Amino acid sequence: MTTIAIVYHSGYGHTAVVAQAVAEGVTRAGATPKLLKIENAAQDFAPLLEEASKADGIIFGTPVYMGDVSAALKAFFEASSKIWYTQGWAGKVAAGFANGLTAAGNKDNALGSIFVLAMQQGMIWVGTGLMPGNMEGNSKAAPEAMNRLSYSIGVGTQSDNAGPDVTPPSGDKDTARHLGERVAKIAAKLSA
Amino acid sequence: MTTIAIVYHSGYGHTAVVAQAVAEGVTRAGATPKLLKIENAAQDFAPLLEEASKADGIIFGTPVYMGDVSAALKAFFEASSKIWYTQGWAGKVAAGFANGLTAAGNKDNALGSIFVLAMQQGMIWVGTGLMPGNMEGNSKAAPEAMNRLSYSIGVGTQSDNAGPDVTPPSGDKDTARHLGERVAKIAAKLSA
Amino acid sequence: MTTIAIVYHSGYGHTAVVAQAVAEGVTRAGATPKLLKIENAAQDFAPLLEEASKADGIIFGTPVYMGDVSAALKAFFEASSKIWYTQGWAGKVAAGFANGLTAAGNKDNALGSIFVLAMQQGMIWVGTGLMPGNMEGNSKAAPEAMNRLSYSIGVGTQSDNAGPDVTPPSGDKDTARHLGERVAKIAAKLSA
Amino acid sequence: MTTIAIVYHSGYGHTAVVAQAVAEGVTRAGATPKLLKIENAAQDFAPLLEEASKADGIIFGTPVYMGDVSAALKAFFEASSKIWYTQGWAGKVAAGFANGLTAAGNKDNALGSIFVLAMQQGMIWVGTGLMPGNMEGNSKAAPEAMNRLSYSIGVGTQSDNAGPDVTPPSGDKDTARHLGERVAKIAAKLSA
Repeated sequence: MTTIAIVYHSGYGHTAVVAQAVAEGVTRAGATPKLLKIENAAQDFAPLLEEASKADGIIFGTPVYMGDVSAALKAFFEASSKIWYTQGWAGKVAAGFANGLTAAGNKDNALGSIFVLAMQQGMIWVGTGLMPGNMEGNSKAAPEAMNRLSYSIGVGTQSDNAGPDVTPPSGDKDTARHLGERVAKIAAKLSA
Repeated sequence: MTTIAIVYHSGYGHTAVVAQAVAEGVTRAGATPKLLKIENAAQDFAPLLEEASKADGIIFGTPVYMGDVSAALKAFFEASSKIWYTQGWAGKVAAGFANGLTAAGNKDNALGSIFVLAMQQGMIWVGTGLMPGNMEGNSKAAPEAMNRLSYSIGVGTQSDNAGPDVTPPSGDKDTARHLGERVAKIAAKLSA
Repeated sequence: MTTIAIVYHSGYGHTAVVAQAVAEGVTRAGATPKLLKIENAAQDFAPLLEEASKADGIIFGTPVYMGDVSAALKAFFEASSKIWYTQGWAGKVAAGFANGLTAAGNKDNALGSIFVLAMQQGMIWVGTGLMPGNMEGNSKAAPEAMNRLSYSIGVGTQSDNAGPDVTPPSGDKDTARHLGERVAKIAAKLSA
Repeated sequence: MTTIAIVYHSGYGHTAVVAQAVAEGVTRAGATPKLLKIENAAQDFAPLLEEASKADGIIFGTPVYMGDVSAALKAFFEASSKIWYTQGWAGKVAAGFANGLTAAGNKDNALGSIFVLAMQQGMIWVGTGLMPGNMEGNSKAAPEAMNRLSYSIGVGTQSDNAGPDVTPPSGDKDTARHLGERVAKIAAKLSA
């Protein structure tokens, strides 16, 4: 059975909602998701690292703070240096998602930071594999549209200044489900 | 008198409209804009390089093709290697703008490519210096809002699949005017 | 039989030497390499695109000019927009290599540009999967050391101001062979 | 009198040595350096933010951990969001330096993360403005050469697995001095 770890940090619950959608996508592909939540930069990361190491793929998620991954996720990345020394994650599939208040807001920079960690760890990177949400122009992409903001490196979602029960919109959550499903299918092939 | 060169490529006229708005911003600051249009990757770039070299600052603009600057602009960058050998643009102010069909579409990657060229040339980089278009969330940012998509490295504009007379929207053009004005003011200080 | 296309541009022959080493690595993995050389930004790319489309994976190579991929490679990327419209390369494996005169020289930016193209095309990215060339510090990494400069996103090679028969050094070519082998093995698994 | 804050984190003392060299460069330009050391990701950043806010320019420094800035520096960036809300650093000069064990090691990614923070804060970015350390090829650049590794976005230094009294080499420290001097001179012009 293919298992996919979803390691994420969430400040106000929006990124957690996206992580949940990613997990649903993993399940849809017939694989098992394992949600692993980071609490803060100072916690003991050993249990999370151990769980993540058992998975066939790891999807990393972050809120975008000042244009990059959160310090809490970065602290997890640094703790993963123990695994790096033995290249323990080499060959596993990796992907990323990032949530923020704005359409751009350097979300691609946050996704790029996740990508670099994955490359240092010898992982194999899977992006969204999605066309733009609306080929007539992004201003016409409905909140329900898959990849409405048109990210390719990873999933970029946008939540308004409201509770995680109402935002980000359904299109963003569908995009997250798609990523979970895609990663799980590729991980299944690679670990066959 | 401070002069700012605006070196840009435009495939279907949308980026040219943004370049025009940048020029208006330069004028608003009491400086002189010089619009320098790139036609294609195979042209003779010597006249453009000579004109750009006379300016106190250079703002580079591009359509986003496959997630990066156009090959035509990249060809201009390569032709600027002659100037690089003598660091002829060192200390000049630089900035960038990128236009595409989508909200994200790796526009930040295109702006980042312009930034790297500017750094190789020893230039000084000026971003938008703008807060997000709407602090309640980007989905609420009107087409008339300054920095509605929330770019910081440079100006990221979005045009729909329609003529340059109707798209990108006024907010994007205002953002471009702001960049032109900001660059001109900083260049004036630096060349004082 | 797994086939891997190696699409590259080379200004003075050094990147061609690296491309040849990548091809040797592909062969070492029991797969078939297909070397596809780009001549310039203005050529007809249709035959190259057709050949590349037949492969199970595509490795892109470039000289680093002014801190980024060459305009010739960027022109090829733009021509690949025809394939992008149907996501014809989706699911294929992708990787990159970049050669330049210096250790850094924004080589990572050039590799990042290749990565973005691959993501737009829905491809799956494979990096070097290599530890640093010398864990005692890069200044101690011999020219014969694998990954002596310590790149992870893709292969970064460095050639001196001399002919491609003597530079880049053997360590860089070994690193390129490793990438070819790694990509071929992963592509074989994914297309099984 | 122009003052330049140098905000840095240092794990084993090597980045601190580079920070000291940056400060010497600031002094050489006739300006006043203010060294502000970050201890860890969980500290109270209010005093550092207050000091940094008094300066005409801020140079940020970091060790490279897993290919990016340290979590401690990222935590400082997040704490600077209070200043971002009022764009309190807008118009100040910014620059960066990053130290690591290897020549590449995604140092440019760490410098890029610093750059993005500076852009979000509305700052003006100054790179090295330096040619490669040796135009015959980086493998010929002596440890005493300025910009021996050829970074342009910011200063990239490399220390071996030895004490900060012997590594990074003198060329790297000279490059750091150059950056401090360059930033101070530009900040003096802009605040005149």
